[in-house]
Amino acid sequence: MKIAVIGGGSTYTPELVDGFARLGSMVDELVLIDPAAERLEIVGAFAARIFAAQGHPGKVSWTTDLDAGVTDADAAVIQLRVGGQQARITDETFPLECGCVGQETTGAGGLAKALRTVPVVLDVADRIRRRAKPGAWIVDFTNPVGIVTRALLDAGHRAVGLCNVAIGFQRRFAGYLGVDPSAVVLDHVGLNHLTWERAAYVDGVDRLPALLAAHLPEISDEVDIAPEVLTTLGNVPSYYLSYFYSHDKHVRESLGQPTRGQRVAEIEAVLLDMYRDVNLVEKPALLGERGGAYYSEAAVGLLASLHGYDDSAVHSVNVRNNGTLPFLPAEAVIEVSARAGLEGPATLPVTPLPPDMSGLITHVWAYEELAIDAALRGGRQRVYRALLAHPLIGQHEYADALADKLIAAGRQHLAWAS
Amino acid sequence: MKIAVIGGGSTYTPELVDGFARLGSMVDELVLIDPAAERLEIVGAFAARIFAAQGHPGKVSWTTDLDAGVTDADAAVIQLRVGGQQARITDETFPLECGCVGQETTGAGGLAKALRTVPVVLDVADRIRRRAKPGAWIVDFTNPVGIVTRALLDAGHRAVGLCNVAIGFQRRFAGYLGVDPSAVVLDHVGLNHLTWERAAYVDGVDRLPALLAAHLPEISDEVDIAPEVLTTLGNVPSYYLSYFYSHDKHVRESLGQPTRGQRVAEIEAVLLDMYRDVNLVEKPALLGERGGAYYSEAAVGLLASLHGYDDSAVHSVNVRNNGTLPFLPAEAVIEVSARAGLEGPATLPVTPLPPDMSGLITHVWAYEELAIDAALRGGRQRVYRALLAHPLIGQHEYADALADKLIAAGRQHLAWAS
Amino acid sequence: MKIAVIGGGSTYTPELVDGFARLGSMVDELVLIDPAAERLEIVGAFAARIFAAQGHPGKVSWTTDLDAGVTDADAAVIQLRVGGQQARITDETFPLECGCVGQETTGAGGLAKALRTVPVVLDVADRIRRRAKPGAWIVDFTNPVGIVTRALLDAGHRAVGLCNVAIGFQRRFAGYLGVDPSAVVLDHVGLNHLTWERAAYVDGVDRLPALLAAHLPEISDEVDIAPEVLTTLGNVPSYYLSYFYSHDKHVRESLGQPTRGQRVAEIEAVLLDMYRDVNLVEKPALLGERGGAYYSEAAVGLLASLHGYDDSAVHSVNVRNNGTLPFLPAEAVIEVSARAGLEGPATLPVTPLPPDMSGLITHVWAYEELAIDAALRGGRQRVYRALLAHPLIGQHEYADALADKLIAAGRQHLAWAS
Amino acid sequence: MKIAVIGGGSTYTPELVDGFARLGSMVDELVLIDPAAERLEIVGAFAARIFAAQGHPGKVSWTTDLDAGVTDADAAVIQLRVGGQQARITDETFPLECGCVGQETTGAGGLAKALRTVPVVLDVADRIRRRAKPGAWIVDFTNPVGIVTRALLDAGHRAVGLCNVAIGFQRRFAGYLGVDPSAVVLDHVGLNHLTWERAAYVDGVDRLPALLAAHLPEISDEVDIAPEVLTTLGNVPSYYLSYFYSHDKHVRESLGQPTRGQRVAEIEAVLLDMYRDVNLVEKPALLGERGGAYYSEAAVGLLASLHGYDDSAVHSVNVRNNGTLPFLPAEAVIEVSARAGLEGPATLPVTPLPPDMSGLITHVWAYEELAIDAALRGGRQRVYRALLAHPLIGQHEYADALADKLIAAGRQHLAWAS
Repeated sequence: MKIAVIGGGSTYTPELVDGFARLGSMVDELVLIDPAAERLEIVGAFAARIFAAQGHPGKVSWTTDLDAGVTDADAAVIQLRVGGQQARITDETFPLECGCVGQETTGAGGLAKALRTVPVVLDVADRIRRRAKPGAWIVDFTNPVGIVTRALLDAGHRAVGLCNVAIGFQRRFAGYLGVDPSAVVLDHVGLNHLTWERAAYVDGVDRLPALLAAHLPEISDEVDIAPEVLTTLGNVPSYYLSYFYSHDKHVRESLGQPTRGQRVAEIEAVLLDMYRDVNLVEKPALLGERGGAYYSEAAVGLLASLHGYDDSAVHSVNVRNNGTLPFLPAEAVIEVSARAGLEGPATLPVTPLPPDMSGLITHVWAYEELAIDAALRGGRQRVYRALLAHPLIGQHEYADALADKLIAAGRQHLAWAS
Repeated sequence: MKIAVIGGGSTYTPELVDGFARLGSMVDELVLIDPAAERLEIVGAFAARIFAAQGHPGKVSWTTDLDAGVTDADAAVIQLRVGGQQARITDETFPLECGCVGQETTGAGGLAKALRTVPVVLDVADRIRRRAKPGAWIVDFTNPVGIVTRALLDAGHRAVGLCNVAIGFQRRFAGYLGVDPSAVVLDHVGLNHLTWERAAYVDGVDRLPALLAAHLPEISDEVDIAPEVLTTLGNVPSYYLSYFYSHDKHVRESLGQPTRGQRVAEIEAVLLDMYRDVNLVEKPALLGERGGAYYSEAAVGLLASLHGYDDSAVHSVNVRNNGTLPFLPAEAVIEVSARAGLEGPATLPVTPLPPDMSGLITHVWAYEELAIDAALRGGRQRVYRALLAHPLIGQHEYADALADKLIAAGRQHLAWAS
Repeated sequence: MKIAVIGGGSTYTPELVDGFARLGSMVDELVLIDPAAERLEIVGAFAARIFAAQGHPGKVSWTTDLDAGVTDADAAVIQLRVGGQQARITDETFPLECGCVGQETTGAGGLAKALRTVPVVLDVADRIRRRAKPGAWIVDFTNPVGIVTRALLDAGHRAVGLCNVAIGFQRRFAGYLGVDPSAVVLDHVGLNHLTWERAAYVDGVDRLPALLAAHLPEISDEVDIAPEVLTTLGNVPSYYLSYFYSHDKHVRESLGQPTRGQRVAEIEAVLLDMYRDVNLVEKPALLGERGGAYYSEAAVGLLASLHGYDDSAVHSVNVRNNGTLPFLPAEAVIEVSARAGLEGPATLPVTPLPPDMSGLITHVWAYEELAIDAALRGGRQRVYRALLAHPLIGQHEYADALADKLIAAGRQHLAWAS
Repeated sequence: MKIAVIGGGSTYTPELVDGFARLGSMVDELVLIDPAAERLEIVGAFAARIFAAQGHPGKVSWTTDLDAGVTDADAAVIQLRVGGQQARITDETFPLECGCVGQETTGAGGLAKALRTVPVVLDVADRIRRRAKPGAWIVDFTNPVGIVTRALLDAGHRAVGLCNVAIGFQRRFAGYLGVDPSAVVLDHVGLNHLTWERAAYVDGVDRLPALLAAHLPEISDEVDIAPEVLTTLGNVPSYYLSYFYSHDKHVRESLGQPTRGQRVAEIEAVLLDMYRDVNLVEKPALLGERGGAYYSEAAVGLLASLHGYDDSAVHSVNVRNNGTLPFLPAEAVIEVSARAGLEGPATLPVTPLPPDMSGLITHVWAYEELAIDAALRGGRQRVYRALLAHPLIGQHEYADALADKLIAAGRQHLAWAS
């Protein structure tokens, strides 16, 4: 099996390569594709050393030529980042000027990222479709994963979006419970970066209530959401929901602090320096601080399942709704636990959601619909409308100001705005 | 036909009585019911003078005895106000302390009102059911109308909720267009106090686009929402949506100002004084400033329709959803245009809603579900949960503080909190 | 108001004209349009005498020129019959050769009628759209009304289908109950010619259970369905449902008997002779045996409502489903009670249906979907598929034989088959 | 893992035992439970010999004591048959007297089976719940599987229904295509014994169109449905759909022929004689003619998946609908392809169904709803109603006669009828 990684020059790539080296015996060839030639050369060579050090027989290559790289691929992983960390830092800062949270996937920052990313990913996907093997899967890591996956599916691609939130909870809960992670099945549901864990089954018994009773303070800390929210809902919202439940607290705490993007940019510089060392043959510990924990496990497991290799794991994927959440249209993209096989993901049954979940999900879904429209068709009014529809914005004065700031900041990446 | 008015001692009652006197030839007997004996005596006597002055043959009576008053009634109108204007003033002020809008039907104030009102209305409705004629309709004006109507329907009552927002727009648009109000049919849809006018048909042709083009500044002013919102949505949100689209502006402008409840309390004192004058036989002009414009037209028209009298009017009513808005459950209560007859309201067809409307509606519906639960079952956690679910609150720190303030302010009206 | 009647040369037309003369004071001009010049001349002249005899000031005219006739019309009534009574007789006989019921709207005969009628009605409607006033309503009486209305709505016409089944029950039940027909509100629901009366409200109280208890034998006789069906369902199916519940009995009884079409053809000949008599100025009693009882009341009432004239009647109309029956798609056309106004029909709320109703309705809806497809696109396979999908056919051997017979019999009216 | 087999004395049991011996290394203990002591002894001893001959370390035991047998079981397989082959023969013959198909799961015979089976299975399941391990799964093979599974789920059991139709098609199509069965993923959907194969994916490419083109005559023969049905629908209905598409042909061919039940009874007598032979240690070839091909593969695979053992197979299961087929209620039980794990089955996405499938499915679903009601509450009227609702019956005269015959034939098994 040949796998192409679009955005393969990322400093994160060694994490993924390590996963394939350890877990992915089905991989014959791994092609890293990136327009940033210099960085790609460093990351590519390091990736080849990782495979070699682990005795994996697969071939690792790298290229700046997208068309050549994806030719005859069995699957493509998209992890590109339009505008790099600099664009991310902008996304994290301009909303703060209006008192709104600055984040790369949530709120106005997430919209900025969606606007510049969707057209690029659609172009990449078209080129994959023309040159990769028929039926090749596209696995999307590129944020905002829900919006990007929806755009890919609407354009007829065989795509699935992947998130590492659920696998992180699975690992953490397994640790609390003293069981193997694979023994924990989560009832994970929502939209990408708007999910809740509603149950944690071990041998068919839901251990979440006991787990919440015993570890409420730690879990509350980890997700940065007040304990009262968790006990009231009776579930565990993801960290991304703290941008909703603790919005103003985030804004207060962000002021005057370096953004996550700035921190990552610093780590990346150090990592790249490490990767240059020809004696380095395994991923350095520092990579763990870069974010994306367990993504490699999730990605390798999902790709194995999609290609018919035995895999008993439950994956947290972004797929068409198709009635799973009856209050959303069939064509919406939701994030939910699924098993997967040659035919694609099969969603686990979802018990009915309480109003506070369905209400917030529908509100954010509405924003996403308008965000996709803005990404595909452009124009200030569509940007304004998507912002006005976002539950964290919702008011004219902020939507108006944010629309101006977003367009000013992103002009170089927005064809219609330049 | 005998009609009982629960809360008949309100200073607003003469408006309703005037409507019956002018329009309601089907009324044989009008009974005003109110526990406030002194005020009832003043309003009742004035009501009788209005009927007499207009030569209406119907009988007007008044009583503090609810059971006696509703006996053999053909219909009951509920317009009671638990806690009077004082409670309203509290609803309008305590949320401001947290930077949230203070309003008697929207946000934390609306929840406070729902909590103290739902149990009282349900008790009244039970007593109506035992003594009124079989099949007697309950028409609810008491706010929050959507929540109260839902509670009434869930308890098996033959109820319909009525709002005067749509009839107000109908009058205003007819004025702009230079046609008779009855010629204007609105596409009015949403939840109570969360509605939009999406079309204004005259002879089957939608005149709203032209009307918006010609009168955007005035309409924008009237609803206190920026013109850009109206042009982007392509419709006219009700004034109550300004608490969403212009939330912070409202909060800023409210600080240090007397509340609407305080203003109404002053007007009421003057009105009551006027009503004492035995020479007064028609409603004074000042009543028009009290709020509730066109409510009497709407109410008299609806009651006529429900009792089989010819009536070609379209009413804006609160009824079960039953698939009208496919994204809400069948049992939800929505506000929509309807025709009515002996068998009750028949909703006009509703074309599919765009995401920004369905998203916000669903979010507020979720709050309403939890508000009803809190009203019926009580407890701080249910109050907190409803607040957290409200799109205007949504954050832990505000829901937490507002829950405390709401309970402290409303303790005397909340059985479970005292 | 100018009303155009397409198919105005029908011997049934005097019934409709009589209705307008007695009830329709809003009519200024009535234009009868028909390609059969000789018959039209006779019917037109008689229609003018009816108006004159009743002192109605409106003008009656007639023409064979469709485009001229519909010019500036405010509404058009379509009651044409492609192929005349001869085609109907064919529809009523060819299915019997396969042991299937022969009927002009149900089963294979209904499909034959749909196939030859839909293209003609769509062409007529396009010509109406080009020449009638903007917003002019099309009221369709032409069978199969459900399928024809669906085709009209799909093509963007402002159409409503009308059936006289419900008004017939209303009259009959009112007679049993000794009340005025207008006092009876029916819970009438289903697809055209597949409807059940589930309740008969008088003053808000359902009188159907008592009515069934007192008159079961007569009602059972009238609808030609065994009493056990009515008591088991607890409702009253229309006569057309006897083609389902008593299918084989119908087939047995039809063999060797003249068809309804043959009987109507005989009556029509006599009627036409009567109409020639210039002294005849009111509709003859024999017209009552021709079918279509109360259609004129229904039609005049509906047209009045749609043009804003006061009308408190409930109409039985064919309209888009839009969630009324949640198990059917929004775009399906259903038959249901409605009030109507300038903005069109407003459906009465429909309480959930039991499985035996929803199951049969969905099965017939499926046939109708495929019938429309066959009518619009033609081809033997589409005809076969629609027949196979019909619950009264359902088997290959019958669908195969009926497809051949239908095409052979209808070849002259089916463009694609000739 | 301990597995209890209710109805373990069936002559079919060796098929299942062989499956566990070959495939089910996770089984520690297999308990066969049956009230027929003598037959159980023979089958039980043979089962033990099969395990021993294959070197499987698991223990095989048997008992007539249900409570003892299910104690501490990890899973229970229900394959009981109320009334034995004699009752089946009755089901297969009494409908023929009315010209209706005689079959043990479809039509009046299927209703008879449901009526006598549902109460017995519910009682068995209650006893399993009290004594088996918490979270133990119930896998139901007992027909009618859809109705029985629905009754089990409604009663709160952790149950899944299993059918061997899909696995049979998978094997057959794999043979035509020359690939391993596990490489074929079917798009299998409907209700139990009312399913269609809509696609056969191999490596993500649908091979069904080519397969139909190449093997239409053989496939048409196997399912006993005319080729024109398959080419028109573009899919492959299961053999059970021939009772619909070829109903009268079945009836004609059944007259004067021995029923399937009679043939099975003969085979069973011979099989039992063979099983007595202490030298027999593997399932005899004759067992293959008894029916239920591949059931053991399907059952062992599903049980493995449900207990967390790696299993990449797609299973054809009966589960709650939950929006998968949007035209059926969430609580309906449908049959669909699924992956399975500790948390239960995860349904594969189902693309929208064409009207002919959704129409027939909904009609049969309606019958099933009424059949369950009749099974749980009894009474001739409920039996009559279910029959009248069945698309293969539908007429009063047959429902009336069949109700009498069904009750007369089944009286000894129907508590309410004796």
